[in-house]
Amino acid sequence: MAEFEPAVIALSTPPGTSGIAVLRMSGEGSLEILRKAWRGKDPQEFRSHTVHLGWIADESGEDIDQVVATVFRAPNSYTGEDVVEISCHGSMWVVSAIIRRLIECGAEAARAGEFTRRAFINGRLDLAQADGVADMIAASSRMAAKLAAAQMKGTYSKRLEELRKELLDLCVLLELELDFSEEDVEFADRQKLITLAKTVLAEVERLASSFKTGQAFKNGVPVAITGIPNVGKSTLLNALAGEQKAIVTDIPGTTRDAIEDAIELSGILFRFVDTAGLRESGDEVEKIGIQRTKDAAAKASIILYLIDPTQDIESQEKELEALRNASEAKVVRVWTKADISQLPEDEKKSCESKSNELKTTSLEGDRDAIVISAKEGNGLEELKKRIVGIATGGANTEDGLIITNARHYNALREAEEPLRRLIEGLQLGLPADILAQDLRQSERSLAEITGAVTSDELLSTIFSRYCIGK
Amino acid sequence: MAEFEPAVIALSTPPGTSGIAVLRMSGEGSLEILRKAWRGKDPQEFRSHTVHLGWIADESGEDIDQVVATVFRAPNSYTGEDVVEISCHGSMWVVSAIIRRLIECGAEAARAGEFTRRAFINGRLDLAQADGVADMIAASSRMAAKLAAAQMKGTYSKRLEELRKELLDLCVLLELELDFSEEDVEFADRQKLITLAKTVLAEVERLASSFKTGQAFKNGVPVAITGIPNVGKSTLLNALAGEQKAIVTDIPGTTRDAIEDAIELSGILFRFVDTAGLRESGDEVEKIGIQRTKDAAAKASIILYLIDPTQDIESQEKELEALRNASEAKVVRVWTKADISQLPEDEKKSCESKSNELKTTSLEGDRDAIVISAKEGNGLEELKKRIVGIATGGANTEDGLIITNARHYNALREAEEPLRRLIEGLQLGLPADILAQDLRQSERSLAEITGAVTSDELLSTIFSRYCIGK
Repeated sequence: MAEFEPAVIALSTPPGTSGIAVLRMSGEGSLEILRKAWRGKDPQEFRSHTVHLGWIADESGEDIDQVVATVFRAPNSYTGEDVVEISCHGSMWVVSAIIRRLIECGAEAARAGEFTRRAFINGRLDLAQADGVADMIAASSRMAAKLAAAQMKGTYSKRLEELRKELLDLCVLLELELDFSEEDVEFADRQKLITLAKTVLAEVERLASSFKTGQAFKNGVPVAITGIPNVGKSTLLNALAGEQKAIVTDIPGTTRDAIEDAIELSGILFRFVDTAGLRESGDEVEKIGIQRTKDAAAKASIILYLIDPTQDIESQEKELEALRNASEAKVVRVWTKADISQLPEDEKKSCESKSNELKTTSLEGDRDAIVISAKEGNGLEELKKRIVGIATGGANTEDGLIITNARHYNALREAEEPLRRLIEGLQLGLPADILAQDLRQSERSLAEITGAVTSDELLSTIFSRYCIGK
Repeated sequence: MAEFEPAVIALSTPPGTSGIAVLRMSGEGSLEILRKAWRGKDPQEFRSHTVHLGWIADESGEDIDQVVATVFRAPNSYTGEDVVEISCHGSMWVVSAIIRRLIECGAEAARAGEFTRRAFINGRLDLAQADGVADMIAASSRMAAKLAAAQMKGTYSKRLEELRKELLDLCVLLELELDFSEEDVEFADRQKLITLAKTVLAEVERLASSFKTGQAFKNGVPVAITGIPNVGKSTLLNALAGEQKAIVTDIPGTTRDAIEDAIELSGILFRFVDTAGLRESGDEVEKIGIQRTKDAAAKASIILYLIDPTQDIESQEKELEALRNASEAKVVRVWTKADISQLPEDEKKSCESKSNELKTTSLEGDRDAIVISAKEGNGLEELKKRIVGIATGGANTEDGLIITNARHYNALREAEEPLRRLIEGLQLGLPADILAQDLRQSERSLAEITGAVTSDELLSTIFSRYCIGK
């Protein structure tokens, strides 16, 4: 077994007052350090994966707190080193006192991401898996957790390794030619190489292009709800959020950070922003309202434009058109029927036929505009299905091969360029040494993602973004 | 073994994003419930006090998160029931998803203090020990943690049981007399009974009187620093706090809740409040300043009155006197020498002799006023020793017999009155049945503290004050 790094300790649970808090210590001599502060059976004798009740005492032998210590012996631990987890009472004073004591006994304070960095160094997980751990901690929806789990399991790493292996195989062939360069042989069939390189490039491009969807799944999909005043934006938002409340039972002790109008639909987090329509009465107010709506629209991936068929429909359609032009977001035309039911019978009919007419003849041929009545709950399911459909954008979420990490995205993008050069070079019949160089460069970019090739600098950048205690 | 209550689950670590979070499940069928959501080796086969890596899957069998499950089998657990602790990644979404899943599989959401309530019901700890657990979680200083630890260990419970036993023994003797009441015998020597009752009363009174000190240890001792403007109040506060910073190393991840000027001295937390002196220039300002100082003084347990010997000493002494009269706090006269050193040599000498004179002849014979120079650090140690001395008030902190809990204090006070009646009754030669009644009443009050006698109502009041997950 390799020599381990010095023991480090950190609080792994959030700061605050609670039933328990968990401290994690990992590295050379962790058990010996625990032993110095421990009052109970000898920790050196604890078997791996067992828990033990005891007291942590201060330097004068006075008990600080009664704790439960869990021992994981190398290499069967998160970090691959000897690990001790100490579960103490959840007072920050107690936590600090125990950390101080164990530092006195020889441990060091762990830096951010220290435990996961060690896990990587000791081959317990690769970098893409480590990024999966970070994503799991940050997960705020089922889809985000699902992608993180897939990444932790190495689904994505495996695919990358396959791609890398194909590139390496190509490389071996080309480099073999280099060894026999004076004899002017071609071991590698150029046409086959082109096909293979194209396949790899297509896969790399596919992965890179999944980043936008992955980002949306990870951070939530911004949705702007807009339309003229009183069109029913808040009613719709409440109807969507109300359903949410029914799903996310209010479990005591698990209060989520209140994110205004963050709603999970089919496992995907959507961040709804209620905005004013582009039209507002009054000059100054109008300007501000328009600017806000434009801003929200610019940030949104999806815009729900609510149309009130009892109001001037043509001007609403114009506004919708303006939004489409102002934003790259997908704009969904939503007819609100809530107000129709309150009209006298004849007006109602006139409105309905008018709206039906407009629906079917709208400029973009957007015949599948959605008709809702948020108050009565009609059309909500269809609307949700549409929103979810736009967010997933036909991405295959089942194989877990969706990029969620900017570092991975950049590495994939960096792998693309030399691959394109390679294909071009092959087509132009460039010599093997030039081709091999592009291949190597592309392969190295992919290797950076899993950490098969890495640098200290890269590692410290990656792990410094982690939280302390992980 | 008794039948256990239904399984309950709660988050036991603070809400928030972190490396890990720990969920606790306890009760009938905990392992069976875990098994339904578990992907890994069969939890039913896990031995007590062992930890296991696995996945929690949702109802469709899709993995939510990779977790570490720790199993504690009845009766060797915190609650005395089968307990499973699940350490998952510290995302609140993950935490909620796992709790929802385990509730689906048959667990219920735990109420506040549920686990500790069950520990009490199953005889794992008595009520005074349970209160010790709550105190440990709330501990914000070494002294608070020390008293909590002593209480958790049952030091205090044991002493209470001894007192109760003495009362019960007396009772038995008196009730024996009742059985033979027609024969007019006295099994119990009345003089001995009086001595015994007085001893118990004295001990109960001692315990009850320790409450003030205990409260101060638990919540922090309020100290007001006052004196005329520019006398050096802030300098003193910084000097005291600076030392603190050197002691409490800034350990990453353990940031304490920032309490303005809360300083731990000799393990005791002091809450320093910097106030204006009673004198202020300007009418309105003066009034406000005086009121603030009076308020701070009224709340303080200790007042440090700083005197600048280069200013009008008599008026400062008057102010100090006014403070003494306005407050029940212990007022410490502190001479600041910082400014003296900046005076010309002759003025300096005159000042020093003047201040020495005043020091030795002050009205209260307060000859041991403290002379400090906060800037140079002189006299700080003496001042700290004095503050700590006043806070402990000669209380014996070694035996852990200091009351910190209002419920205990009230019970002790309730035990005193019947004890006094008993002594009076014994002296008046009242009949045994009346005496026995007082004895019983006193004994029952003491029994309430440890929960030897209790009611459902009392229990739910006590445990509802706990946090969820404990």
